[in-house]
Amino acid sequence: MSKLKIIPTDLLGEATYNSPLKGKISRFYNGEAVACCDRTQDLGGLENVADIEYFELAGPREKLYFNPAEVTVGIVTCGGLCPGLNDVIRALTFCALESYGVKRVLGFKYGYEGLVAKYYHYPIELTADNTDEIHEKGGTILKTSRGQQDTEEIIDTLVHYGVNILFTIGGDGTQRGARDIVEGVKRRNLPISVVGIPKTIDNDINLIQRSFGFETAVEATWDIITSAHSEAKASRNGVGLVRFMGRESGWIAASATLANSNVNFCLVPEIPFELHGENGFLAHLKERLRDKEHAVVVVAEGAGQELFEGKKGADKSGNKKLNDIGLLLKDEIKDYFKAEGMEVNIKYFDPSYSIRSRRADANDSMYCLQLGSNAVHAAMAGHTNMIVGLHHDRLIHLPINLIGERKVIDPQSWFWQTVLQATHQPTAMVNA
Amino acid sequence: MSKLKIIPTDLLGEATYNSPLKGKISRFYNGEAVACCDRTQDLGGLENVADIEYFELAGPREKLYFNPAEVTVGIVTCGGLCPGLNDVIRALTFCALESYGVKRVLGFKYGYEGLVAKYYHYPIELTADNTDEIHEKGGTILKTSRGQQDTEEIIDTLVHYGVNILFTIGGDGTQRGARDIVEGVKRRNLPISVVGIPKTIDNDINLIQRSFGFETAVEATWDIITSAHSEAKASRNGVGLVRFMGRESGWIAASATLANSNVNFCLVPEIPFELHGENGFLAHLKERLRDKEHAVVVVAEGAGQELFEGKKGADKSGNKKLNDIGLLLKDEIKDYFKAEGMEVNIKYFDPSYSIRSRRADANDSMYCLQLGSNAVHAAMAGHTNMIVGLHHDRLIHLPINLIGERKVIDPQSWFWQTVLQATHQPTAMVNA
Amino acid sequence: MSKLKIIPTDLLGEATYNSPLKGKISRFYNGEAVACCDRTQDLGGLENVADIEYFELAGPREKLYFNPAEVTVGIVTCGGLCPGLNDVIRALTFCALESYGVKRVLGFKYGYEGLVAKYYHYPIELTADNTDEIHEKGGTILKTSRGQQDTEEIIDTLVHYGVNILFTIGGDGTQRGARDIVEGVKRRNLPISVVGIPKTIDNDINLIQRSFGFETAVEATWDIITSAHSEAKASRNGVGLVRFMGRESGWIAASATLANSNVNFCLVPEIPFELHGENGFLAHLKERLRDKEHAVVVVAEGAGQELFEGKKGADKSGNKKLNDIGLLLKDEIKDYFKAEGMEVNIKYFDPSYSIRSRRADANDSMYCLQLGSNAVHAAMAGHTNMIVGLHHDRLIHLPINLIGERKVIDPQSWFWQTVLQATHQPTAMVNA
Amino acid sequence: MSKLKIIPTDLLGEATYNSPLKGKISRFYNGEAVACCDRTQDLGGLENVADIEYFELAGPREKLYFNPAEVTVGIVTCGGLCPGLNDVIRALTFCALESYGVKRVLGFKYGYEGLVAKYYHYPIELTADNTDEIHEKGGTILKTSRGQQDTEEIIDTLVHYGVNILFTIGGDGTQRGARDIVEGVKRRNLPISVVGIPKTIDNDINLIQRSFGFETAVEATWDIITSAHSEAKASRNGVGLVRFMGRESGWIAASATLANSNVNFCLVPEIPFELHGENGFLAHLKERLRDKEHAVVVVAEGAGQELFEGKKGADKSGNKKLNDIGLLLKDEIKDYFKAEGMEVNIKYFDPSYSIRSRRADANDSMYCLQLGSNAVHAAMAGHTNMIVGLHHDRLIHLPINLIGERKVIDPQSWFWQTVLQATHQPTAMVNA
Repeated sequence: MSKLKIIPTDLLGEATYNSPLKGKISRFYNGEAVACCDRTQDLGGLENVADIEYFELAGPREKLYFNPAEVTVGIVTCGGLCPGLNDVIRALTFCALESYGVKRVLGFKYGYEGLVAKYYHYPIELTADNTDEIHEKGGTILKTSRGQQDTEEIIDTLVHYGVNILFTIGGDGTQRGARDIVEGVKRRNLPISVVGIPKTIDNDINLIQRSFGFETAVEATWDIITSAHSEAKASRNGVGLVRFMGRESGWIAASATLANSNVNFCLVPEIPFELHGENGFLAHLKERLRDKEHAVVVVAEGAGQELFEGKKGADKSGNKKLNDIGLLLKDEIKDYFKAEGMEVNIKYFDPSYSIRSRRADANDSMYCLQLGSNAVHAAMAGHTNMIVGLHHDRLIHLPINLIGERKVIDPQSWFWQTVLQATHQPTAMVNA
Repeated sequence: MSKLKIIPTDLLGEATYNSPLKGKISRFYNGEAVACCDRTQDLGGLENVADIEYFELAGPREKLYFNPAEVTVGIVTCGGLCPGLNDVIRALTFCALESYGVKRVLGFKYGYEGLVAKYYHYPIELTADNTDEIHEKGGTILKTSRGQQDTEEIIDTLVHYGVNILFTIGGDGTQRGARDIVEGVKRRNLPISVVGIPKTIDNDINLIQRSFGFETAVEATWDIITSAHSEAKASRNGVGLVRFMGRESGWIAASATLANSNVNFCLVPEIPFELHGENGFLAHLKERLRDKEHAVVVVAEGAGQELFEGKKGADKSGNKKLNDIGLLLKDEIKDYFKAEGMEVNIKYFDPSYSIRSRRADANDSMYCLQLGSNAVHAAMAGHTNMIVGLHHDRLIHLPINLIGERKVIDPQSWFWQTVLQATHQPTAMVNA
Repeated sequence: MSKLKIIPTDLLGEATYNSPLKGKISRFYNGEAVACCDRTQDLGGLENVADIEYFELAGPREKLYFNPAEVTVGIVTCGGLCPGLNDVIRALTFCALESYGVKRVLGFKYGYEGLVAKYYHYPIELTADNTDEIHEKGGTILKTSRGQQDTEEIIDTLVHYGVNILFTIGGDGTQRGARDIVEGVKRRNLPISVVGIPKTIDNDINLIQRSFGFETAVEATWDIITSAHSEAKASRNGVGLVRFMGRESGWIAASATLANSNVNFCLVPEIPFELHGENGFLAHLKERLRDKEHAVVVVAEGAGQELFEGKKGADKSGNKKLNDIGLLLKDEIKDYFKAEGMEVNIKYFDPSYSIRSRRADANDSMYCLQLGSNAVHAAMAGHTNMIVGLHHDRLIHLPINLIGERKVIDPQSWFWQTVLQATHQPTAMVNA
Repeated sequence: MSKLKIIPTDLLGEATYNSPLKGKISRFYNGEAVACCDRTQDLGGLENVADIEYFELAGPREKLYFNPAEVTVGIVTCGGLCPGLNDVIRALTFCALESYGVKRVLGFKYGYEGLVAKYYHYPIELTADNTDEIHEKGGTILKTSRGQQDTEEIIDTLVHYGVNILFTIGGDGTQRGARDIVEGVKRRNLPISVVGIPKTIDNDINLIQRSFGFETAVEATWDIITSAHSEAKASRNGVGLVRFMGRESGWIAASATLANSNVNFCLVPEIPFELHGENGFLAHLKERLRDKEHAVVVVAEGAGQELFEGKKGADKSGNKKLNDIGLLLKDEIKDYFKAEGMEVNIKYFDPSYSIRSRRADANDSMYCLQLGSNAVHAAMAGHTNMIVGLHHDRLIHLPINLIGERKVIDPQSWFWQTVLQATHQPTAMVNA
């Protein structure tokens, strides 16, 4: 009989306190396995099951490492906005205070800056009262900033305020910072847990099925593409050009394309394309316009970055404006059709800020509630150096160091094939 | 080394034709396993993995049972409306015609009635043109009806129109009907595939993670509950009473409650409750009104059915009006507070028709696209007597006969515990 | 030369204080005339202009009756909910405090009850801070109740709290109550101004072009009718039956019909109709179903009240349930088609509470801002016994006693003719 | 007795045919006056009424100039998109075909280009069937283009297709073109009526109370400003900068500001401002950020054009990019705060295309229906050289040549004062 191989997450020590949830719920999760980890199974099929790895299932634990009455929780939000940030803050606060009865919850402001004394951003105390309605608005009440801060100074702040558990809501940079804090905390031998709630509107965290805010973002693309289509159809050779989020993966752009049938070209980072030549994007766009007199083009912000390499004036440090694929396409389309002597009417849409600052839709709101409360369950039981997330439809604990490469679209998958069929765009827009 | 145990679906025969998708996509699915079936694993954890069962992964097959050029596809929609019906019809039509190049696609109208000659509902031919924009509206262009029809007459119609593949979009009654057709077809030794796309806005199909339209429905509850809350707060002892869908399970009601923090009582079929007595619902409602002067109550249509048993005048055949838990609650609340000499202002909301007739949200729209095209993949490869659906975040083939008991809320789960915490309602409203 | 004849509103006395707005705005309104009053001109054309009457234009006055520093303002909301109530409360508060610098603003709770000591509803102090975001939600933060209270007790409360200006937000009953307060105040010779902001979601106040919340309500009908249409089309002889607000006039129902082209019958209080007989509604509905197999019927709640007269069991005091025209139609349609042996599938929609509890749309929000601030301008200048409103696109002062008969739809007007053309319904559904 | 002075519109000749509406409606409009024209009355008040001018009231006439059975109607849409274009096309088509029974309705494509033979844009025949659902989408099914075309060639096309009535849907350029066509038609002595439906999303047509699409646009600003506010509040010294439409007037920007209370600076073309200096915009922005750490700035596209005059590289022909006030502000704010050594985080929103391509909201949809049908009434009665529009809440006929200067915001009005109070921005941001 083969034994299950479970991928464990770090524990601060033995869990000895009884959960205050005892008596309220009959079902606790004590290290059960969860559906197979994608690293071992997935695509190829399995001939045997001896080596299948499993993740820990998230959920309330019967025994806690921390004595709730002595716990101070810290929360920080980092990086760009994403629908659901306030939902997660609220869920963490409510679960910590109302389910576990912790001593207090502190919100550190302006991302990791708020954890460094020299910025003078004092934390605010979060309560059920002052977080009760925050999820009805977008943004983050804790405010945010980009970039790392000195790990030792951060730990000094945690010690200063007596923080036992730190929740880091942010992208992979933020979670790398969280891992650094874990290591620093270990070096100092401090009983502090650090649990991350991964945030990426691009939905490209490896092993995580969907990140919060992603569905809200996809929902928001619908109206924009419908507008781009109306604009394109209204003028001769009208081109509705829409840039969506997606730095290294095209999930939003591709999902938007599948959800709204009016897209004719979907350009994503995973599929390189050329602008010029017989089989370049521009020639195909021309063909489409000749045929239908209008076109809708959706492009992920990270698509076509290879097109900037040879461009005069583009330097390695990356002039932001030049690297804007949306504006590049807009200019190139104009120039190309001018040279071809063909009228073209481009309408350019860049709705990213409008999308990421929305409040979470109902389904994301619910997901955030689950992420937040399960992050609290994990930390109270002493888990650390991990994030929570959905994997094969189950909430799991994922060791931070497993967040490695990004989840990207496989060009050979049926998912991308469906995009090709929806758009009727060529499989590859490159010249031999 | 343990071998994987896969739960197979029926096949009409050997798949000998090459898929026309060959060359377009490099990755085919040829009976690979998928993450563990819930029947064996799930909650308890597994000590060994010898007996884990797996489902077939959905996806395009390299070899087909049918020669596409000779295939006539039939589609039928049955039962109540659900967001996404038109999306599924469109996805089936597009995949069959554009990906596989089948001969033709016929839409049978008014549910199973359309497959019975005596109703004179002639089928309509579905094309890429006449289905291109149907998903922009709710409802079903094929129209629908309830109830079964004679299986033999249905098969006569399939033979009459030369239908090789029938797609049945409907709930469990519809899929039971599909199974009967499969059996009849076998008896006559006909090479006809029947593949179901399960439809239940209640999201209660066993083993299926979410059914299409469910997320759209939950999204739609947000505004209604917000309205109920505004009404309740505006008058003294205001009660916003909302009835949502959910005949045998409370997924919509509970999800709506988690997504919108203003609900004070969530009543679902899974948790029986009493109206009267010290620990009955009405006493708790009174306490809430005394404390806050307003309350929002959400009730699934199937909740509290046990309350009708003892009621005078209620007969076994079930007078629909009497069994309406929403109206019952409305009347009981009125009577109770009148007797208590306490003012109460009830505002009753019954938005079911408005919700189920909406167009699918973007995420459901995408899901429908995947359900539809994977149903076509399965049928073209000769699979039959099965449905497609999402299971642990993977699209699978599920033998129809595995649709057994419904998926219901476990009162001891963290999910329901979260509802209790969100509402602050008592764990049980029954008297000892 | 003919002189203008202006319809004046009551003044408490001479305006002697300089407006604090002096220096900020250069344009004050000192009793200028405004476009002709509908009572004299309008439809028939005018042969001469000697007798045209004009209303006072609303707007900030240069001289005030009240010394702002000594003013206490009271606000009360009465009757049913309407989008924009919170906007008006906020506008009154902001204009009084920030533009004029009054001493304080008191919100009386639960309608006129809040102005009667025996109910123990203590007023709350309204500030820029606690009203800043109230317009982002529907309902009324001041809560509301129906019905009149004793005028003398109300005046006692005004005196008790030192209220100099009372703003009454409510329908014609509320404004009649306001007039009673004015008279009582006069009898006691008190320098208290009472200014009304008329509220009727039905949009049927005579001389007032549109009441706040009406446009928001019409906007909200769109989705409901679209749902009703989807439901109707999806089943054989499907009837989507929608009841909208409109007790004595059909403005919402008729506007909804014009805004959404899918309505086949629009029934309003102004146009009596019969159910039975050759030219009755049911015969025409049958004809429509025979022809198209589905129909959408929109009915204002006050339509067809004459149908209840002869009905058994209906008494003069008006059994509410029996007088519900929506439910009556639902039952009558069922019975009729059962008798005719024709299948019919009715889906009934009653969305009134969902509509009236919404937050105001942007345009209504702006209108409320103008209504509120102009009510303050009027009261500060000593005007009383009046309401503010839009008349021929200008904000005016209207003496309360001019609110007489309701504004109703003229069946001979082009407006109604457009409804007839949009629905193709018969001009009259009565038998000779 | 003073006689009314009515401002007449041109008539092609005597109206001799009976309207087919006779018998359907009892009320016709035969040249009645309408509420006073703004040119004479309005602001200053009137001492006497002898010289008041009135406009013709729109509406169905009893006698027609044209014999409906012989009429061919032409429709053309010109210039940028605006919500409601399809509604107007549909209303014209329905009223012409169904109310009057005209012979046919032709839609000329791509604006005035479609009326010039050399572009080979053949007209399409519009019917009740092919226009029935067009108003459910934004854009214009007739497509559009900018710019004038040769008047004589246009008239040649009208003659070629036998067009008796031409409806021109477009802005003031389009209506000037319409006037040229009227003059050409007169010179050739042709019995062709030209009636305009004025289109300007900026709402700045003189004498016209509101243009169609404006309210829809204002409604659409709400979410954008809410997003800008969320973004601004989320980062230190966050600035949400939003550019709205408004070339020569700031109605959308100012209305958006009044409808959403989160705007701190509203910049419009009517109020010049300086960037630098003690009282310049940037100094005030700095003060706001010092105080609150975030700001929302709304700017109409035509605001601050005087700022480009002195700028290096700006030429008289007007480099479009340089004249983009949104981008200028974005750059200037960045530079200024960099020089000040103060962090600033700007999020720029340019949602114009998303707004103008939306479908009309319900209220605009209704207004378009009225505009379209009243344009048909006017033309059928022989009126020409005019536009239809709402004036003091009444639909009137306005001679094209009265469309002169634009309607702009009066900085001294209460309307603008309300904006100042809502934003707390200085009355003037210019240095002495």
